[in-house]
Amino acid sequence: MTEFNIASMASHAKTASRVAAQLSAQQKNALLNAIADAIEANSDFIIAENAKDITAGAEKGLTQAMLDRLLLTPQAVKDISAAIREINGLKDPVGDVSNLALRPNGLQVGKMRIPLGVIAMIYEARPNVTAEAAALCIKSGNAVILRGGSEAIHSNLAIAQCLHQTIAELGIDKNIVSVIPDTSRTVIEQLLKQKETIDLVIPRGGEGLIRYVTENSQIPVIQHYKGVCHLYIDKHADLDKAINILVNGKTQKPSACNAFETVLVHGDISAQFLPLAAKALADAAKVSVHACKHSIGYFPNAELATQDDYHAEYLAQEIAVKVVSSFDNAIAHINEFTSDHTEVIVSQDISRCQAFVKQINSSVVMVNASSRFSDGNQLGLGSEIGISTSKLHAYGPMGLEALTTEKFIVFGDGQIRE
Amino acid sequence: MTEFNIASMASHAKTASRVAAQLSAQQKNALLNAIADAIEANSDFIIAENAKDITAGAEKGLTQAMLDRLLLTPQAVKDISAAIREINGLKDPVGDVSNLALRPNGLQVGKMRIPLGVIAMIYEARPNVTAEAAALCIKSGNAVILRGGSEAIHSNLAIAQCLHQTIAELGIDKNIVSVIPDTSRTVIEQLLKQKETIDLVIPRGGEGLIRYVTENSQIPVIQHYKGVCHLYIDKHADLDKAINILVNGKTQKPSACNAFETVLVHGDISAQFLPLAAKALADAAKVSVHACKHSIGYFPNAELATQDDYHAEYLAQEIAVKVVSSFDNAIAHINEFTSDHTEVIVSQDISRCQAFVKQINSSVVMVNASSRFSDGNQLGLGSEIGISTSKLHAYGPMGLEALTTEKFIVFGDGQIRE
Repeated sequence: MTEFNIASMASHAKTASRVAAQLSAQQKNALLNAIADAIEANSDFIIAENAKDITAGAEKGLTQAMLDRLLLTPQAVKDISAAIREINGLKDPVGDVSNLALRPNGLQVGKMRIPLGVIAMIYEARPNVTAEAAALCIKSGNAVILRGGSEAIHSNLAIAQCLHQTIAELGIDKNIVSVIPDTSRTVIEQLLKQKETIDLVIPRGGEGLIRYVTENSQIPVIQHYKGVCHLYIDKHADLDKAINILVNGKTQKPSACNAFETVLVHGDISAQFLPLAAKALADAAKVSVHACKHSIGYFPNAELATQDDYHAEYLAQEIAVKVVSSFDNAIAHINEFTSDHTEVIVSQDISRCQAFVKQINSSVVMVNASSRFSDGNQLGLGSEIGISTSKLHAYGPMGLEALTTEKFIVFGDGQIRE
Repeated sequence: MTEFNIASMASHAKTASRVAAQLSAQQKNALLNAIADAIEANSDFIIAENAKDITAGAEKGLTQAMLDRLLLTPQAVKDISAAIREINGLKDPVGDVSNLALRPNGLQVGKMRIPLGVIAMIYEARPNVTAEAAALCIKSGNAVILRGGSEAIHSNLAIAQCLHQTIAELGIDKNIVSVIPDTSRTVIEQLLKQKETIDLVIPRGGEGLIRYVTENSQIPVIQHYKGVCHLYIDKHADLDKAINILVNGKTQKPSACNAFETVLVHGDISAQFLPLAAKALADAAKVSVHACKHSIGYFPNAELATQDDYHAEYLAQEIAVKVVSSFDNAIAHINEFTSDHTEVIVSQDISRCQAFVKQINSSVVMVNASSRFSDGNQLGLGSEIGISTSKLHAYGPMGLEALTTEKFIVFGDGQIRE
């Protein structure tokens, strides 16, 4: 695909975005239902195309974990359809009017929610993102350009074929969804230059991909690099809750960005908490521990924690442990090492909890709950298109609303400015 | 100023931003009142420093218009103080909690408004921006780095001295406001690289400055390039309102970005409207007209409008006029030439007005009112730090709320994820 083609695809997407923005909630619902039906009806075709990716992946020596993420079974295809139907059940945010207020001169001024326009998604192997990102963008009235990884190219094009056929059958401009068939990095370079036609780029994948997109884009990018989530056990913590939250947040799915990487323990409670923590972490998942000098004695096989440990996103059954002498020291540690993803306090003292919520400005701040709840679905957004750890536009898990913006609307009756 | 110094200034600003974020509304109000007092008390000093800029500007051959913008009289200094007191009267958005809702598992999930962190303002000659941008950033709990143009350097440093002295007297980290004393372009280059410490860059000035900042920044930028505002006179327009709005929107302050540049007239009403428009525009300000072939006959000295005219931001007593054969053609023209700033319909037909508001996704869409109301103060934001015509984060005039974001807050009682 040449530069001309990417520019042309983006330009067609821009035109189609005006169509997408004007679709009624009923039209969008009918379209998404038809897409979910089409994906189920074409399950055999999608699985056959997916098999080509699996064969190529095995030949290229992809890891078993990567092949697992890539594999589409009949159940996995049903799950994609179910996810689309769930997105379809969410409230359409487009057209909502807020804060309509009367100015002294009689003007009525308010804000109306509108789609962003054209969203470009750049992602790695998972073929379900192709369908689900398209569904989120359609539901929020946007056009979308999808550029998936080379490992999933046959699967992605098969899903794209279902999408395009269904969109065309309903008489809608099929350029509301574009799938880039070229998997070279050159095509990403060209894509990131289309600032006149693309409104937002969302990269999803490893830190390398995300940094590359952020550094090379002339279009606004929403991203998160990593999740170094902190758990702070206050001296007024309920120890049962603390242990449950530690074990769940660390061990339930350590590969997730919302898993804990560091636990900070108030010195006044460390002698009671740390022996319980050592046993619970060992019992649950033989968690490897990098401990500070004040806590290392409680963990038989621990290594001494370094500064690097406090920066690390282990993505594994591995954790850093540090005793802090005060609440303020816990806040200072988090401010120094935060990735602005998710931080949790466990405490029964309401003043401490309020101070933590006020002073920590990470994208998700929690009291007495597992960090594993820090995702769009669990927080009530229904589904998420990504997570933002930069404060512009959206901060934290991003649902449908983060794919929209608000314009000012003004109703007058002939007013002019004096 | 070397690269090291800019990085160091930005790093100190980042530390100070944590202080700024935790200031109470009372503390911020006391600080802004003291700053307003200090600026009035130091009026003579500020005016004396300003005189150096005026002398240098005259020697450099600045135009009279530029010297007028640069000049600080005793009244102009009082106006700066008054603007700070007006900003101080606005509601503090920080800490507001919205959408607190209960999840099925008992978690309470909501959003809390927080400052963005560190804002960098890059602007041209006007010294009042130094004080007013600082006030808006302080009120919204942010730290700010100010880099004004070389023409106003003495004025800016004098105002900065008042700010710093007052901040220090109240015992607050003075790095919540930093003024860059170096006016070279190199310093902007370095500033735009501080992505680890600066959260947002807002350039204000000519299109050249704004494009330079946007193309060279590794930090998110909010900007608008120009305002090509359209007025559409529908066939159901009230002609008196139409003429008043045309004359006011075009001639009251043609140098403003919210002035009209093109008027579109429905063909069914053009024979009645255009003679009135020709007379009114000539009477009000001898407006030069670039007219389409269907309208040129009504304007004695008009030139034939080209595509360039429809793209032009005249910033002068000059306008493009075009007859459109339908409402849809008006929408299509606006979609093709819009700068996403402000568009206005004049019509008594409510269905037409609703369709216009729904179909035009510029940042401000108005019915039966002058485009001159499209600024933060007139729309009820109190004061504005800039205007955004890109849809990310903020769209349209930006007040205090646009200098904040929202984090998720979650209150549990020991919940873990199954």
